[in-house]
Amino acid sequence: MAAPYELIYYVGVPGRGEHIRLALEEAGAEYTDTASLPMDKCREFVTSYLTPGPGNPPYYAPPLFKHGDLVISQTSNILMYLGSKLGLAGANQNDEYRVNALALTALDGLSNEVHDSHHPIAVELYYEDQREESKRRCQEWIKTRLPKHLGYWERALASDEGGNWLLGKTFTYADLVLFQCLDGCKFAFPKAMSQAKESGKYNRVFRLWEDVKARPNVAAYLASEKRQKYDWGIYRYYPDNDVLAE
Amino acid sequence: MAAPYELIYYVGVPGRGEHIRLALEEAGAEYTDTASLPMDKCREFVTSYLTPGPGNPPYYAPPLFKHGDLVISQTSNILMYLGSKLGLAGANQNDEYRVNALALTALDGLSNEVHDSHHPIAVELYYEDQREESKRRCQEWIKTRLPKHLGYWERALASDEGGNWLLGKTFTYADLVLFQCLDGCKFAFPKAMSQAKESGKYNRVFRLWEDVKARPNVAAYLASEKRQKYDWGIYRYYPDNDVLAE
Repeated sequence: MAAPYELIYYVGVPGRGEHIRLALEEAGAEYTDTASLPMDKCREFVTSYLTPGPGNPPYYAPPLFKHGDLVISQTSNILMYLGSKLGLAGANQNDEYRVNALALTALDGLSNEVHDSHHPIAVELYYEDQREESKRRCQEWIKTRLPKHLGYWERALASDEGGNWLLGKTFTYADLVLFQCLDGCKFAFPKAMSQAKESGKYNRVFRLWEDVKARPNVAAYLASEKRQKYDWGIYRYYPDNDVLAE
Repeated sequence: MAAPYELIYYVGVPGRGEHIRLALEEAGAEYTDTASLPMDKCREFVTSYLTPGPGNPPYYAPPLFKHGDLVISQTSNILMYLGSKLGLAGANQNDEYRVNALALTALDGLSNEVHDSHHPIAVELYYEDQREESKRRCQEWIKTRLPKHLGYWERALASDEGGNWLLGKTFTYADLVLFQCLDGCKFAFPKAMSQAKESGKYNRVFRLWEDVKARPNVAAYLASEKRQKYDWGIYRYYPDNDVLAE
């Protein structure tokens, strides 16, 4: 019997674990998810996992992913591990590295940078203690970084020889990662994302968001109770930060 | 004849390209490096590479690495690609994922976070336009994040069954990445790093820095003209930001 897939991540927000869930759901893979536990049990379980096991170094932070004797950390790393197993990493090894590069680029630009926009001074301080800095950072981010990122993804989607996915006609987990990042940005910055959509400059990007959302397994997952709401995680809605590009 | 290894990165600072250089140098591999070009030629060459080629999506930013028909981006991705080829990714595929997780964790915590410490509001603005925010961020970073990171690496180095490397007795590129990150932090925050060393809490971490620096190929490289000085890149020395933990 094959070893089960086990996702180990906090419950309460989609967070970084969501990229892994979307890959598993798209592929119709069976997996367990600590997000199905009550919040206190889940936190206890996740914390107990951060200590090292035989052969495994200690982990810095969840998500963790267990498969047999391997416990693996870091979102992009888990996706790269799972990608070829789930048929979501293209046709050959070169594609695997291309897909990993795309996933890392999306996570850096449209997830990590967005997280830091509400915590520009320190993750350890409350948003309320860095509210002015956060506002200034979001204004700058929406003015310069968001168009830079969306412009990059528009070019990446235009460079194929047919097909609407990042690798042309081949759907990969990079498309899922980009979808999830765009979805989070739409929650955090609804005004700026509407403005970007209406500009008509990023039609391929917004079409990808629609196309991924409409894939049958993704659509069924998003409509299910397993899909958690954005709240205190990476993507947060603060009215002060929801500004239009100048 | 095997395809050559080609590193494509800006000249002028070690930067993210340095992690790839150190892996190639440690392994004694032959490679070309655009950092050997004059600055204007190098910038022109790197920029020309950011456009996509056949089969390759466009790239967001250097470092890029060319090997045959594959042009690959993102530091951790390039290292994962090269790691097994250079014998620096452990003994088996599980080790490759463990080493990638360690490299990603070091790059996130001790490279990206340090870069953002001098640009907390926006990469696109000058340091001088965010000097107060940068000072506040560095004070917080040195108080809470630096000990968190060093403590994590101390535990990672303690969890082996003998040996001073992150995978115990097996030297991998994760050790090189951690060395380079520590080396940059020593440049950017000399007071805080001295204080951390003298605390005696992170003896394994500071020993790793010494041990990597003393490896013959690394030592020869560091003493050569190819090793560039820190200046305007990820690791910058600003006296205002060089504070002791409270």
